[in-house]
This record gives sequence, structure tokens and C-alpha cells, in this order.
Amino acid sequence: MTAKIIRGTDLREALLDEVAVDVLRMKEQYGRPPGLVTILVGENPASLSYVSLKIKTAHRVGFKEVQENLPENISENELLECIKKYNNDETIDGILVQLPLPGHINEGKVIETIDPVKDVDAFHPVNVGRLMQEGAAAPFLPCTPAGIMEMLIRSEVPVAGAEVVVVGRSNIVGKPIANLLLQKGAAANATVTVVHTGTRNIAEHCLRADILIVAAGVPNLVRPEWIKAGACVIDVGVNRVGESVSAVTGKKIALLRGDVDYDAALEVAGWITPVPGGVGPMTIAMLMKNTVKAMKLRRTS
Amino acid sequence: MTAKIIRGTDLREALLDEVAVDVLRMKEQYGRPPGLVTILVGENPASLSYVSLKIKTAHRVGFKEVQENLPENISENELLECIKKYNNDETIDGILVQLPLPGHINEGKVIETIDPVKDVDAFHPVNVGRLMQEGAAAPFLPCTPAGIMEMLIRSEVPVAGAEVVVVGRSNIVGKPIANLLLQKGAAANATVTVVHTGTRNIAEHCLRADILIVAAGVPNLVRPEWIKAGACVIDVGVNRVGESVSAVTGKKIALLRGDVDYDAALEVAGWITPVPGGVGPMTIAMLMKNTVKAMKLRRTS
Repeated sequence: MTAKIIRGTDLREALLDEVAVDVLRMKEQYGRPPGLVTILVGENPASLSYVSLKIKTAHRVGFKEVQENLPENISENELLECIKKYNNDETIDGILVQLPLPGHINEGKVIETIDPVKDVDAFHPVNVGRLMQEGAAAPFLPCTPAGIMEMLIRSEVPVAGAEVVVVGRSNIVGKPIANLLLQKGAAANATVTVVHTGTRNIAEHCLRADILIVAAGVPNLVRPEWIKAGACVIDVGVNRVGESVSAVTGKKIALLRGDVDYDAALEVAGWITPVPGGVGPMTIAMLMKNTVKAMKLRRTS
Repeated sequence: MTAKIIRGTDLREALLDEVAVDVLRMKEQYGRPPGLVTILVGENPASLSYVSLKIKTAHRVGFKEVQENLPENISENELLECIKKYNNDETIDGILVQLPLPGHINEGKVIETIDPVKDVDAFHPVNVGRLMQEGAAAPFLPCTPAGIMEMLIRSEVPVAGAEVVVVGRSNIVGKPIANLLLQKGAAANATVTVVHTGTRNIAEHCLRADILIVAAGVPNLVRPEWIKAGACVIDVGVNRVGESVSAVTGKKIALLRGDVDYDAALEVAGWITPVPGGVGPMTIAMLMKNTVKAMKLRRTS
């Protein structure tokens, strides 16, 4: 068996095209496009590169896009004031604060200052709580888990009744995707097990999985003998395992690997996501979807 | 094997004695006891009996206890105003609105009107979100899941690394206890599976469980052949299966059964909770603990 490859890069294109059409409709109906502000504190290179991609994508779909590049030594209070300004800005629908923040700033306080109706990352406890209580019916889903659900839906992976094993219990991936998939609803109603560093026999659990979602941050953790024949393997890991030099530009390029031994898994799984080009591209597309939704929710509430 | 019986009635006594000592200390330190308001709308007999027990227990531990018995036809707005009054009352630390509410009142709106720092039922989305993000480190845990954790701790059931299977995915029991037990921390760090009406083979999952938590609302659902020898069985079900007449008072008494075939399970399990007298009594004790905690949190924040 050779697994079907679920290409996040392709799905992203389809999603962004949908968003662009939505943006045109909203401009017609409300006289303005959705507005997204990206707030970056300091100059962490990884954060810079994530934010640049978000900005580029926001432009592509036709958003109003505002960048706040704040100095590393900004006070917590100044940052909170900046967020409040956009809470009160009627042309801004989504507020994204790029994490991590410098050590002198309380991340929890920052996240809780974002108006929950503009919290397009869905990290505010109110939105986390709604996800747990309401599943996919919650106003905003965090972008990576939402991207995973979109991949399952668009690849027609059967989820209802499936055995799902989630490897990892992070607040950003493991816990929310587990909570989403165990609830009633489309692309949900699965039997979900969460395994982690405290689990006795991870391999045995993985082998039960019809859908195996791996977000452990350990390169090549999941070996082919952990995978049930025909299972859907979603690899959320993005691990830098080295670098190479581009033959074209001469620039250094990070060598990325997932949490799954991809080449070997390809022969066992029924579906698999590559790294790079799998879950990663979905995350930014879902951020754009959330921003459109934020505008719709504010307009209809 | 005959299971050790985890008696919630006994644990409740120990917990309430601890709370009473805390109350004395707080009166000394702050000049007043913790204050709890119970808000009851209408005269649903089950709600009346729950609230009466809460009031009685609050008196026993020495709380200031305020009762708001509001008419069935109260408007939503009047109820919200009543809650806001207690949000602003410095002598009230905990606000409990007995659910369910009459159909003309939006329960979600009512719960979200309670100040999260006085939300001793922990049903506000902010407190639900904190539970998912922080586990037992969250400010308030909902009373039934918190009671189950207390039972596991006080009965010295090994939880770290254990296989936990939760039967049922309610917002009040299944989802929060699953989220609590899968996180790092004391009486946690377990491998957790949630099974439900959409699960293919519930019995097979249950048989894997070192700790089996059943909150399905189906009398005698769990049969002895679903239970691993020596497992800890926590039965959250309270099902009315008939009634009898008290020989002493001549009053009708509801006959209650749990979700587990208790007599048979007793021979297989290592620990078991009876119904009645198991998880039920813990819930009210944890409500009292939460109210003390609410006062402490407000005093130190």
C-alpha cells in the first residue's frame, strides 16, 4: 500500500481562494474588507518569518492588514494599550499577537486583553472553554486543530466512530484537537485517546489508531510498526534537523522533519501528511478563515 | 477479590471538617466567613432538594449563606440583575445558580454573567478554558470532577501512568475529568480515552482501564466482564429506577442505581464507589471547598 498524500499546500490554495471570494462579498456588503492586525514584539527571526507569511497571505486574500512592530523592551502596559486600541477599532476584526513574547511580559495577561470576538488565534480562555463545551460549534477554533479537521474533511477520511490517538498534550494542538474530535458533529464523534510522555506503551496505543495525530516535537518518533495498515497519519511536528544551502539563492535553508518516519510510514498508512507542506500551510489559511468569521460574527451579533 | 469501597459519605465528612476549620481561620483573619448565595428559579422538586442540601451544608461549615428564591416567571433581565448585585457584594464569594433554568431564560448568558472569580460551579467558559489549559492548577474545578480527583487521591489510587477510560462526554463530568487526568500534576498524568455513544466497542475499551469513570446515565451499563481485575471503578451515574416507602417516615424514597452493575463489579474491581453514597456527596463538599478558595483568591489577588 502507498498512502494518499494529504498536501496542505494544495488545500491551502483552495481555502485561500474561498477566503478571497468571501472578502469580495464582504466588501460589497459592508463597504470594507476584513481587517487583521499582526503585533510582533522584538525581532526573533522565527517570529519575523511567521509574521511575514501571515502578512503576505492577508494581502493576497484582500484583507486590510496592519502591522505593529514593537520594540523588544516595550513595557507590558504599552503592549496592553496597543491591543486595546485595536479592540476599539471598528475596521479591525482580528488581533494576532505573535508568540512567544519577551520574558518581562505576561503572555496570559496579553491574551486575555484581546477582545474574545477578535481573538482569531482562539487562545483566550473564553474561546478555549467554548471549544471544550461546544466543539466545532464554538465561534473560533485554534488554527492548527482547525486545519487538521479541514484536512480530514476535504480528504474524506472517515472520522465518526474512528479510533483516534493523539500523541502530545500541548495547549496549541494536542488538547484542542482531542476535545474537538470526541464531540458530536461533522468530522468528529470519534473515540479519542491522548498519549504523552507519561504513557506506558505509546506504540501499542498508536497501533490501535484509525487516525493518528502526532504533535510531539520529536523527529521520527513514530515508526512504521506503530501504524495500523490503512490508518490516516497527521504529522504536526516541525523539527529542524539541520540545514542545507540553496543551489539557486545560495541561502541557508532549514532541513525540516516531522514526528513520523515519513518514507517508511508511506508504505503502511492509508493517508499521510508530509513535512513540510502538510499541516503547516493549513494553519495560516485557517487564520484567514477565522478573520473572515470574526467580521461576520461581529456584523450579525 | 472484593473491591475496597470508596465511601463518598465518609470522605465528605473529612472534607467538610477541613472546610469548617478553614472558615474559622478566615473569620479570624478577615473578620467574616466565606459567603455563598444560592439562586433558585422556580420550584422544580429536584432542584429544591439539591439547593436545600447545599444550604444545609453551607450552614454546617459556618458560611454566610444567602438564598434567592425567584419566581418561575422571572425575566431573564431580572435574573441577570440579581447576579450582578452579588458580583458587586463584597461579602459574597461564591454565586451558585441552580440549573436547569426555565426555558425562557438563556442559561449560557446567565452563567457568563457570573463574575468568573465567584463562579464556584466553574461553568463559566473562562474557568472551563483554564481547566483545559492548566489542569488542576486552574482557579476553580467543577465540583463533580474535582470530587472524583479527591476520591482518587484520598484512596491512594495510582493515577500517574494509569490507563483511564471515561464513559460519557458531558460538559459537567466526562469532558472535564478527561482533561484533568491527562495533564501533568498530582492525581493526573494518566493516559485517557473518552468513549461515548459513538464508540464502536465500549466494552473492549473499558477492559483496558486501570481507572474506569462512568458517567453515562444508563443504569447497570457496565457489567463485570467490562472491568479489568483490580481496576478502580468510579460510578457517577445516579439513575432513579423506582421508589419504595420508608418504614420509618412513610414517605416515598427514590430507588437509585448507578451506571455500574455494583454487586457483580464488587467481585472484580480493586476499588469501587457505591450509588448512592459515592461521588454524589463529594460534589457538595467540593462546592464548599471552592467557595473557601474563592474567598482566598479574591483576598490575595
